[in-house]
Amino acid sequence: MQYAEMTSQQLAEERKKAEAEFAQMKKLNLKLDMSRGKPGADQLDLSMDMLKEIIGVCDCKAANGFDCRNYGVLEGLPECRALFAEILEVPAENVIVGGASSLNLMFDYIAQCMTKGVGGEAPWAKQGNIKFICNVPGYDRHFTICEHFGIEMLSVEMTENGPDVEKIRELVKDPLVKGIFCVPKYSNPDGITYSDDTVRALAALTPAAKDFRVIWDNAYVVHDLNDHPDSLLNIFEACKAYGSEDMFVEFTSTSKITFPGAGVSALAASQANIREIRARLAMQTISYDKMNQLRHVKFLKNAAGVRAHMKKHAAILAPKFQIVLDALDRELRENNLGRWTVPNGGYFISLNTTQCSAKRVGELCREMGVVLTSVGATYPYGVDPADRNIRIAPTYPSVEELKKAVEVLCLAVRLATLENLTKKV
Amino acid sequence: MQYAEMTSQQLAEERKKAEAEFAQMKKLNLKLDMSRGKPGADQLDLSMDMLKEIIGVCDCKAANGFDCRNYGVLEGLPECRALFAEILEVPAENVIVGGASSLNLMFDYIAQCMTKGVGGEAPWAKQGNIKFICNVPGYDRHFTICEHFGIEMLSVEMTENGPDVEKIRELVKDPLVKGIFCVPKYSNPDGITYSDDTVRALAALTPAAKDFRVIWDNAYVVHDLNDHPDSLLNIFEACKAYGSEDMFVEFTSTSKITFPGAGVSALAASQANIREIRARLAMQTISYDKMNQLRHVKFLKNAAGVRAHMKKHAAILAPKFQIVLDALDRELRENNLGRWTVPNGGYFISLNTTQCSAKRVGELCREMGVVLTSVGATYPYGVDPADRNIRIAPTYPSVEELKKAVEVLCLAVRLATLENLTKKV
Repeated sequence: MQYAEMTSQQLAEERKKAEAEFAQMKKLNLKLDMSRGKPGADQLDLSMDMLKEIIGVCDCKAANGFDCRNYGVLEGLPECRALFAEILEVPAENVIVGGASSLNLMFDYIAQCMTKGVGGEAPWAKQGNIKFICNVPGYDRHFTICEHFGIEMLSVEMTENGPDVEKIRELVKDPLVKGIFCVPKYSNPDGITYSDDTVRALAALTPAAKDFRVIWDNAYVVHDLNDHPDSLLNIFEACKAYGSEDMFVEFTSTSKITFPGAGVSALAASQANIREIRARLAMQTISYDKMNQLRHVKFLKNAAGVRAHMKKHAAILAPKFQIVLDALDRELRENNLGRWTVPNGGYFISLNTTQCSAKRVGELCREMGVVLTSVGATYPYGVDPADRNIRIAPTYPSVEELKKAVEVLCLAVRLATLENLTKKV
Repeated sequence: MQYAEMTSQQLAEERKKAEAEFAQMKKLNLKLDMSRGKPGADQLDLSMDMLKEIIGVCDCKAANGFDCRNYGVLEGLPECRALFAEILEVPAENVIVGGASSLNLMFDYIAQCMTKGVGGEAPWAKQGNIKFICNVPGYDRHFTICEHFGIEMLSVEMTENGPDVEKIRELVKDPLVKGIFCVPKYSNPDGITYSDDTVRALAALTPAAKDFRVIWDNAYVVHDLNDHPDSLLNIFEACKAYGSEDMFVEFTSTSKITFPGAGVSALAASQANIREIRARLAMQTISYDKMNQLRHVKFLKNAAGVRAHMKKHAAILAPKFQIVLDALDRELRENNLGRWTVPNGGYFISLNTTQCSAKRVGELCREMGVVLTSVGATYPYGVDPADRNIRIAPTYPSVEELKKAVEVLCLAVRLATLENLTKKV
């Protein structure tokens, strides 16, 4: 019998049952974490050979003979630029290779826009109360960058084809709206890939602000989970029809290809944007870690090498995603306790509760020893107006831990819902 | 016979001789570089074993068991913080370990002061035409950071005990003067170490600006060249008498210990400053490259290990410095053609011409195929008011190249001086 058909007496009994399960679960003293998109140790093992790639003196030379152990080559090793160029499908001269973190590259770019301005316009910091569009639910670290710089955030809801472009077109009429954060492939947390129409519509935007910039965070560009992956239109190709190449700066990294925090990041942009970014970089550092760039190129070789490597990740990750999806199906579908995405790639499953507070689910999970991404974090200022979104990160726990963690999560959703349904009114 | 005693006829003959040597030298088609403080390849060979330090799975764990291949530990590996703490003689909790570049840490700190302010004061960018004190001659990359952010630079001359503190005390009465860049040990380019009195006087400063900050760039903290090295007073110890710990942020790196551009940087600061910097870092990145931090700790071990390693560098560098000093002595002393420093450490010898334009010397060197640091670069805005300072970086060329390069330099000084002395008036 479904909850909808039960008497309040029956619901109270269901709740009592769930509370007993809850008490049992607490006794297990679990300590499980589904909060962040951290790869599991078995995924990291896949890249261990990379560490053996540079151990001889002769191996520290770039293809052009440059000694990677010394200062120089600000834009990154030519062969590493070529690797990212092939992945992002852009010319190598439009690529700059950075340090270990693409988040760092994005933060620094926003900082540059704030202090120096972009495209010859005044610094954002001197243009008053500027604003950014944030697609919701979205990546919390994009939101915190905006918050850090005092940039007001305007939420735009995601659809199954990407963000609501109609809404964006309205918002960019305001010259104080300076940009938008996008994760166009396997979006964080929904796992949605922008449709071709969405990409073209974004390329065709004509914002009032001449210094409007789209932060195209292509974090999951090669992070497919199965043999029917999504495909994303090349943004710079799409821009050609509209001459809007300067509006987009694309970022990516190997954080979830090799080692998070010890990988290599990169950005791709028009020559005008590359010039501005390079001019700032020349003041900011002498050169990024070319030894690590060389290590990556020697290990990954080219885009085909990256794709082959990503298949090994998928072999580890696909079963984990399936465990979560199976549990959600089994535990939440019958009583319509939630709706969730079934992504073809990326790092997350996004669960929306339908009859209870996501915050309450988070509390109950914590009491049972399972840490979720702070509920609300997928919205600007940490406030999910509908209090329903839960980001599930299935990658870090082992298979056994994950099974337990998702069991806890489903129990929490059930209990929170029953608490609601049996509330005295 | 000395130039001073020669007739104009004799001087003209000397000049003709020098011009003939110049013509001969040009025919050699030299291509030598004494422009930047880049270590030589033999120095980089000293650290090759570091690359073998992390190649097994078990070796990627920090002392506390943390897997360095994954995200996390924003402040840096505990054992790496401890290493820098020992070198800088501060508690480990006052240390943050960064990426490969201390210049990057400094740039980011100035950027933070510009956009967010420091110590609860308004952002520097919103305080009008702010200014920085720059000790001259000094490090060009400090000056270019100021220039990038539109910070006006006020020059203060170096003395043999460090910068002219009397002058600094006057300048900091202006509340728009927000800071000063210092290289307190083996200063760039003079190789001067600040005397204890200078350090104490700086610690005792009472600037009008509450948000005044000293960028204490201790780049050459362990970079001694001989067995009678300079010693620098611990700035944070000196601050204790004045309660001025918040006024100083110290930076260093292993760029010239292991690999430039692929080393590890660090900063040390008061808890109040660490809190502010950490809060920004938490928005800027997830974590720096802990694999490289681990590699460094495993290789260098502790401060004693670093000092032992630096002796190997000194064994390579001391003879190079001696080659330059011997040549200057031989070629320039008799006719008082220049004055120069004899540093006990660091990366540079600073030459001041006495009777000719440094710019002209740079031109003549370039014609003979020797690149010097752009003459003027050791002063703000690239303008040396006396046009006399030449920064000699003896580390990168081989011994044979260096001998040739300094021969060229001395010839250029001689010829430029003779051009002056034989000028038609």
